Amino acid sequence: MCTAFQCHGYFGRNLDLETGFQEEVVVTPRFYNFPFKNGTDFKNQYALIGMATVVEDYPLYAEAMNEKGLCMAGLYFPDNAHYFDQEDKKLNLTPYELIPYFLGQYQSVHEIKSIIHQLHIINIPFLPQMPLAPLHWIIADQNESLILESTKTGLQIYEDSLHILTNNPPYPYHHWNVHHYMHLTSAYPQDNLIHQNMKPYGNGLGTVGLPGDYSPASRFIKALWLKDNAKMSDCEHENISQIFHILDAVAMVKGSVKTMKNQDDYTVYSCCMSMDQLTYYYKTYDNNQIQGIQMKKLDLQASQLYIFILNRQQNIQYYETA
Amino acid sequence: MCTAFQCHGYFGRNLDLETGFQEEVVVTPRFYNFPFKNGTDFKNQYALIGMATVVEDYPLYAEAMNEKGLCMAGLYFPDNAHYFDQEDKKLNLTPYELIPYFLGQYQSVHEIKSIIHQLHIINIPFLPQMPLAPLHWIIADQNESLILESTKTGLQIYEDSLHILTNNPPYPYHHWNVHHYMHLTSAYPQDNLIHQNMKPYGNGLGTVGLPGDYSPASRFIKALWLKDNAKMSDCEHENISQIFHILDAVAMVKGSVKTMKNQDDYTVYSCCMSMDQLTYYYKTYDNNQIQGIQMKKLDLQASQLYIFILNRQQNIQYYETA
Amino acid sequence: MCTAFQCHGYFGRNLDLETGFQEEVVVTPRFYNFPFKNGTDFKNQYALIGMATVVEDYPLYAEAMNEKGLCMAGLYFPDNAHYFDQEDKKLNLTPYELIPYFLGQYQSVHEIKSIIHQLHIINIPFLPQMPLAPLHWIIADQNESLILESTKTGLQIYEDSLHILTNNPPYPYHHWNVHHYMHLTSAYPQDNLIHQNMKPYGNGLGTVGLPGDYSPASRFIKALWLKDNAKMSDCEHENISQIFHILDAVAMVKGSVKTMKNQDDYTVYSCCMSMDQLTYYYKTYDNNQIQGIQMKKLDLQASQLYIFILNRQQNIQYYETA
Amino acid sequence: MCTAFQCHGYFGRNLDLETGFQEEVVVTPRFYNFPFKNGTDFKNQYALIGMATVVEDYPLYAEAMNEKGLCMAGLYFPDNAHYFDQEDKKLNLTPYELIPYFLGQYQSVHEIKSIIHQLHIINIPFLPQMPLAPLHWIIADQNESLILESTKTGLQIYEDSLHILTNNPPYPYHHWNVHHYMHLTSAYPQDNLIHQNMKPYGNGLGTVGLPGDYSPASRFIKALWLKDNAKMSDCEHENISQIFHILDAVAMVKGSVKTMKNQDDYTVYSCCMSMDQLTYYYKTYDNNQIQGIQMKKLDLQASQLYIFILNRQQNIQYYETA
Repeated sequence: MCTAFQCHGYFGRNLDLETGFQEEVVVTPRFYNFPFKNGTDFKNQYALIGMATVVEDYPLYAEAMNEKGLCMAGLYFPDNAHYFDQEDKKLNLTPYELIPYFLGQYQSVHEIKSIIHQLHIINIPFLPQMPLAPLHWIIADQNESLILESTKTGLQIYEDSLHILTNNPPYPYHHWNVHHYMHLTSAYPQDNLIHQNMKPYGNGLGTVGLPGDYSPASRFIKALWLKDNAKMSDCEHENISQIFHILDAVAMVKGSVKTMKNQDDYTVYSCCMSMDQLTYYYKTYDNNQIQGIQMKKLDLQASQLYIFILNRQQNIQYYETA
Repeated sequence: MCTAFQCHGYFGRNLDLETGFQEEVVVTPRFYNFPFKNGTDFKNQYALIGMATVVEDYPLYAEAMNEKGLCMAGLYFPDNAHYFDQEDKKLNLTPYELIPYFLGQYQSVHEIKSIIHQLHIINIPFLPQMPLAPLHWIIADQNESLILESTKTGLQIYEDSLHILTNNPPYPYHHWNVHHYMHLTSAYPQDNLIHQNMKPYGNGLGTVGLPGDYSPASRFIKALWLKDNAKMSDCEHENISQIFHILDAVAMVKGSVKTMKNQDDYTVYSCCMSMDQLTYYYKTYDNNQIQGIQMKKLDLQASQLYIFILNRQQNIQYYETA
Repeated sequence: MCTAFQCHGYFGRNLDLETGFQEEVVVTPRFYNFPFKNGTDFKNQYALIGMATVVEDYPLYAEAMNEKGLCMAGLYFPDNAHYFDQEDKKLNLTPYELIPYFLGQYQSVHEIKSIIHQLHIINIPFLPQMPLAPLHWIIADQNESLILESTKTGLQIYEDSLHILTNNPPYPYHHWNVHHYMHLTSAYPQDNLIHQNMKPYGNGLGTVGLPGDYSPASRFIKALWLKDNAKMSDCEHENISQIFHILDAVAMVKGSVKTMKNQDDYTVYSCCMSMDQLTYYYKTYDNNQIQGIQMKKLDLQASQLYIFILNRQQNIQYYETA
Repeated sequence: MCTAFQCHGYFGRNLDLETGFQEEVVVTPRFYNFPFKNGTDFKNQYALIGMATVVEDYPLYAEAMNEKGLCMAGLYFPDNAHYFDQEDKKLNLTPYELIPYFLGQYQSVHEIKSIIHQLHIINIPFLPQMPLAPLHWIIADQNESLILESTKTGLQIYEDSLHILTNNPPYPYHHWNVHHYMHLTSAYPQDNLIHQNMKPYGNGLGTVGLPGDYSPASRFIKALWLKDNAKMSDCEHENISQIFHILDAVAMVKGSVKTMKNQDDYTVYSCCMSMDQLTYYYKTYDNNQIQGIQMKKLDLQASQLYIFILNRQQNIQYYETA
């Protein structure tokens, strides 16, 4: 399943699945044509960068960032996601149209908050043979986040001060669950138990109780705890390193979790989007080296999509030994 | 603190500290001279590769592997490690002499088991100004492992079917603690609770209960659980990738754990030694790319140490975008 | 705070507070007059038994059972409970009127389900100087349960197949949380971890992961797990014993939990209502002996409330030793 | 299995088994004859009270207290307990002779510490057809406790500042395990997690992480945490109530834990010995009412055992309702 969060101007995301989805890093230049299912043709004012499958020249983004550093990701939300028939006087969008629509024309979560209530997520697949994935979304800039969940009771919009999302259960579960971990501490703990001035036998004892399993609820807590305690700096490389360490801590290792069909659920890729540098960094399950694509270096007035094929081969740097 | 384990012919290790220790990858060729504190001069029959500080041409190894794929690592064991005065008719070795001594002349754990009971770990520092680190050790080949702990009650030798070590408490704690996690499962779980055929709401629910904190006890369980469930293959690169994913899952992120002196305890480096290929792979906290040093490509009859300085700069592979 | 559940025809409840509330066991005979705040005078068709404070001859029930074995309890729901202004064409009831209203005229949850959607819980206190307690409710017969929560978004009605309620968070949290414990087992567990046929070192190892803390979320899980695994029989006394053992397992011990004002939150009393025998059993924090009041032995056509003062003195049965 | 602890002058104990063992409360008067298997005849200077099976006029105590308030209990220690052949110049005692020997002639743990190192626990059953139970022991007065474990490596004596014992693993496991819970708190917790002044949604949130399962390791922690946080008073009845509440919190409910043979492991009885009042209180699984036997009211110079049959019938106090 997945983990996504915003942390000090970086947006990190693990994509966990049984298999890849022909994903590539795709940059959509400005004013690219998105034929929407509600009958309108949408053109994006801001360029986008993110991981996507391209079908019929249409980038189906898993997550993306626009030129203003606004980020959005769709995460798996099985059994709970519900999409509706089209309805008049609403902002009718299919799930895969949300990212181009919101990132294509808004600069901030603040802007989106004023129109998001008109949103009505509709049940039209991109192609008849491509059923819609059940998703929920996080939209984040450096200051604010929104969570969107379209369920049988309609669209739920949560202003999210935690800046993080995983999967099921619906978001309010995670909000409440966080309270159960508020007393844990990265600090050297005191003896509240036997009141005999017992000393920790090692480091990390104030963190006992942090979950390490792979349920979405536990990945939410572990990643939240790490990002809210992470030491950040002024150095882009150090910060990227921190984001990937946090993602690594909740990444799924092949063999550790089986799906209902007994397949391996694993972290297909991890990415980190720098809201400031407008760079998309990623690494794949099989290649530890971080790959970077810099939107600032591209001509964003281009007419075609930029497509960057993933480097999945483990690129080990061997020392010269002769 | 630290985590080390053997898994399907690979030996993985995280070194967790508040700071580095001038560590470098060091290959000791055959027949290198180790002046031992018991008065003898030891020469190693087998070459060694591992992470070490070199002081006065003497490699002080944190962990190493020999030409036969036999691996050994020392891990922090504060307050519990106890070293003794020299004693006649014993195999008197200082803590830092254990790795060259055992890896320098034995091919397997089996061989070591026949002589290990003579070992007497003595309290002589390498230099007067370098106090001995409190350590315990794991020795592993592809089939067997030994744990060595020298405490006030003497030398404890454990034949370890788990093939893993972290830090405190002494090893028997960890052995018993494993029993508390035997019922967790990577499989899709059944409803044992309300007996109403409740279905998991997502993947990973059979793993709930796995600890995710940074105590040595919990890192032991999490790493053990991951390695014993890890999907291994015939491909060296895939297997290395698995070992590093497991190490990442128990690695310490800067900010998550403070020491008594309020410093950050973090994973300075992670390494994976391939017992078959005799290659030492590592990555540092700041550089995700895996680095490799192949012992097979070196002249092991050389007279000098080979020293490989760590590549600590984040080496991002940027796509050409123009 | 509190724990309440239905189990095989018994309704158990712990009332956890910093102090008692002048509670007494009160039987309301049939056709007793309840002057409702919506302007009507309600007379109950069925007699009620339960724990209540009596103010101005009006029984304010914490939980009760009617002659048909239908049970209902109000549990503390701070910060989330929201009561509304009176509204036309709704079933306007104050929180303390719910128990007499529903138990006074309905035989089953099934009957209540057909009218519950009209309910509108209104914000009129019993007396001006008695602010309304923030509550949510469980209604249960031997087959079905309903949970009622009146929050800012209106009345939420949950058909509850778990038959249990504690306190915050709102009910959906608990529903989802249950999934995290579905893989635990009362059975002798197998070795899913190291696959070396490891044996449990004792009994109960398949239950590791059951929470033992005093958060409402954890009391919900612990009590649910115990009641759904409890061995029940045909013997009333054995079954009562089981219900009280389950209640004891989640009861709050003085000193274990402090409130925001640093007072002791403790289990003031535990009760068990037998739906079949129509008997109300209870014990107090200070007196372990179970007390019983049998509704069947009372004249339920009486005109006055029956009030039974609690026996709070520890009644130890000393053996004759002379 | 079992839980035993000393708390502010009271010694509490749950006996958990699949079945009773014909247990009765037995008072052994002074100078009763115990024919020991080492060939000596032992006569106790101090009278004893406790739970025992009497076979051939010999009280086989599960736990007992002497006239000086010194208490001792044997708890199940399967697979780890090891008893030896008789050895010269040692204090050779069988497991069931320990309680009469130590309680029969010593007033305090302090006295026992001076001679305990001579103890050698021998493998002679009481009768050929009664195999020895694998046990370990706790001896406690109001100030100190000792833990005795006879394992393959010999007799281990632990001065126990925790004053508590359950079952496996051997005692050092429990000693270390306590460190993992030192940061939990009965107090109203602060927000160490998201640093946004998040408030607990209810009481007990600082205790999240306390285990509630039935493994011996978790019962040890839960009981320790409760007893070390328990609010005690000057009132005997209040204190007894507290001890039984703590015992109830770790008691085993029928159905919750199955043994290897699929039998129910449950709390056959709970007892509390008052070191000051010299009274033995107990309650059984089926009868919640506390029963008391006051040693001070007996003629302790008697020549026969006093035997008090357990009151196992639920003694409900019904209110007069007519």
